[in-house]
Amino acid sequence: MSRVRVHNFGVSLDGYATGDGQSLEAPFGHAGSRLLDWALGTRTFREMIHGQSGGSTGVDDALAASSFQGIGAEIMGRNKFGPQRGPWQDEEWRGWWGDNPPFHTPVFVLTHHPRPSIELEGGTTFYFVDAPPEEALRRAREAAGGLDVRIGGGPTTVREFLAGDLIDFMHVAVVPVVLGRGVRLWEGLEGLEERFEVESTVAPSGVTHLTFTRR
Amino acid sequence: MSRVRVHNFGVSLDGYATGDGQSLEAPFGHAGSRLLDWALGTRTFREMIHGQSGGSTGVDDALAASSFQGIGAEIMGRNKFGPQRGPWQDEEWRGWWGDNPPFHTPVFVLTHHPRPSIELEGGTTFYFVDAPPEEALRRAREAAGGLDVRIGGGPTTVREFLAGDLIDFMHVAVVPVVLGRGVRLWEGLEGLEERFEVESTVAPSGVTHLTFTRR
Repeated sequence: MSRVRVHNFGVSLDGYATGDGQSLEAPFGHAGSRLLDWALGTRTFREMIHGQSGGSTGVDDALAASSFQGIGAEIMGRNKFGPQRGPWQDEEWRGWWGDNPPFHTPVFVLTHHPRPSIELEGGTTFYFVDAPPEEALRRAREAAGGLDVRIGGGPTTVREFLAGDLIDFMHVAVVPVVLGRGVRLWEGLEGLEERFEVESTVAPSGVTHLTFTRR
Repeated sequence: MSRVRVHNFGVSLDGYATGDGQSLEAPFGHAGSRLLDWALGTRTFREMIHGQSGGSTGVDDALAASSFQGIGAEIMGRNKFGPQRGPWQDEEWRGWWGDNPPFHTPVFVLTHHPRPSIELEGGTTFYFVDAPPEEALRRAREAAGGLDVRIGGGPTTVREFLAGDLIDFMHVAVVPVVLGRGVRLWEGLEGLEERFEVESTVAPSGVTHLTFTRR
């Protein structure tokens, strides 16, 4: 059975997984890149996202790399796709990632405002679906052809899939910063740990990696 | 100069440092002992709190033990002292810890309802003070005779001392549970990490120990 996975999900000490005030210039609001810096420094991210060489090759990198293995489809919330809210003002927007996004699979964007799908280079096609988590997952599984489905975020989307007990594996990176405001991941998930085996590892970057594996 | 220290301060993934619904039977509310189990299993706690032998002797124990070294006075919030709220109904209450509490120093209990001090065995005397953090700290420092002052909790008290930039060292134990409700530690402390060197270590107990040392 294909698994449903969350990866590289940065969370602050106070439980925020993105900052306050998302905009075109600030995809993570006031958090900036602070929840993701550990990943941006890895060999995997430098190579896959930026086409650069170098970067760290320890546990940060191993976890970052695993995010890209065996994924056949992604589901993301609309706020991960872009900063717009409400009806689409501008159908020119094709995500933050340029002409060749790092997904290389079908990507299902959850939105109450469907629009035509967008096929980009490298195998990424964005589909816009107005559906509850279970139904979006059914469609993503179908598209994944036996491979796993990644829930890409943001926090509201991950939280909904966790609340629906739809996640098999989750990698959270706790970053030792206090964001103070933004969107919380853990809200309404009391007792979540009881459904998972939880492992913790500190990387030299100072980040604590937690893996949640469904019992 | 004597330092102001916080130790063994358990916090959940969602940032709660105590649970919801404190009562005589449940000092930590619905959290129970979950934020403290790592410490209760150490040689230090077994011996100093319960007079028992055995217990773990690794990093959990080293950190637990350091809590008791070089402390000359403690400051705690009223909710750490007991479950009562408002004017004292019952001056018989002498804290959760019996006739010989594990403090062995003067202890300043912050409350808007002062009452006579209580002298117990082993050097612990509880003083009840209606004072802002700076003034309580001045009195505790005086009583500590050159040793350090421990801020014992609960979360509201620690948060107030952090907000006033009065803490020199803080050891937080992040426990991988989602409490969902209770009293939050990190509220209103955006950017706290900028004032401290932060180190992280995972113990075999699964707890992530963070130490905050003032820059």
